Amino acid sequence: MEITILAFEGMTPLDAVGPFEVLGRLPGAQVSIAARESGPQRSAGGSLALLADYALTEVAQPDILLVPGGPGADALTKDTQVTDWVGRVHEKTLWTVSVCTGALVLGAAGVLRGLRVTTHWRAMNAISSYGAEAVDKRVVLDGKVITCAGVSSGIDMALQLAAKLSGEETARAIQLAIEYAPEPPFDSGRMERANEREQKLARYGLNQP
Amino acid sequence: MEITILAFEGMTPLDAVGPFEVLGRLPGAQVSIAARESGPQRSAGGSLALLADYALTEVAQPDILLVPGGPGADALTKDTQVTDWVGRVHEKTLWTVSVCTGALVLGAAGVLRGLRVTTHWRAMNAISSYGAEAVDKRVVLDGKVITCAGVSSGIDMALQLAAKLSGEETARAIQLAIEYAPEPPFDSGRMERANEREQKLARYGLNQP
Repeated sequence: MEITILAFEGMTPLDAVGPFEVLGRLPGAQVSIAARESGPQRSAGGSLALLADYALTEVAQPDILLVPGGPGADALTKDTQVTDWVGRVHEKTLWTVSVCTGALVLGAAGVLRGLRVTTHWRAMNAISSYGAEAVDKRVVLDGKVITCAGVSSGIDMALQLAAKLSGEETARAIQLAIEYAPEPPFDSGRMERANEREQKLARYGLNQP
Repeated sequence: MEITILAFEGMTPLDAVGPFEVLGRLPGAQVSIAARESGPQRSAGGSLALLADYALTEVAQPDILLVPGGPGADALTKDTQVTDWVGRVHEKTLWTVSVCTGALVLGAAGVLRGLRVTTHWRAMNAISSYGAEAVDKRVVLDGKVITCAGVSSGIDMALQLAAKLSGEETARAIQLAIEYAPEPPFDSGRMERANEREQKLARYGLNQP
């Protein structure tokens, strides 16, 4: 089973690496990290780089395409070389998946028209412009397209997908292998649970919005 | 605030990238990825590489040292060039932190003697050989040393540390920025919640144990 993760400059590394740790453990999984051009793809702040081992032109048809998000996703939506590739590859995937604002890239590729989808709270309005219906859920499946909320939600999504691909027992074992029994120290992971000041900080205030 | 993440061959990328997404957003944080030698550091299966921008010899004294785990951690415990560096740097850190079996590297560096610590369930026995007391908790603080459980626990740990470094409001805002409101699809993230077959799969059966 070929799994391709689309990497890019300004990506949010956890969007890719969370699902990687789940899907990469599936029996028979072959993961490749690909980008417009091969080489290091840096996070928005520049301090962490994932290496894309392949250029998109080198990637055979993947069974699963995963598009992470991040501040760089906006630029990617305007890169027709990338969006054309996404649209073409999507025709033959088993599953096409986005994490966070990776959904915008799927939208720009025409993949989301008429579908129920989700994305990071920051992009819930923007995603509607691609003909999709934004749904306030952490993980949304519609046909063979799976979208999920911001950044950390990719782990939840990937475990659901793992169960579909290899059965619940295997997915449960992977959840144990990565010891995913979360104990978030705060309850602020959803917009409606954060206060106004925290919302403002999350939107505008931190180093890497 | 200088944060150094020690990367290595055979690391588990999520151990590093989970905390990176939290700590890297702190106001004033400067994250550097460093390894014995600079260059790509691959996951155990080889399919995902984080780029180490620095060799250890190029790293100035970090305020926070973070050591991720992974199957490659065992080899690292025997690499005295690395463990000597960890021990020396630890003397002047504000916080020395491990995720998963990164605790074994701290142990080999002599950092854990007499401390209460935790690690991946796989290494709970091994960690005791370094003079540490293994505690069955997701995140354990003892003095300036923080250890946490397997892989995904680094996110919980880093949010706790973020609150100590920059206050609870900032930490809560970061939790919102990464939309960390987990919805694990199963309850198998802890050994005692998984059945015998799932435990066996997690220990021996998957691609990348």
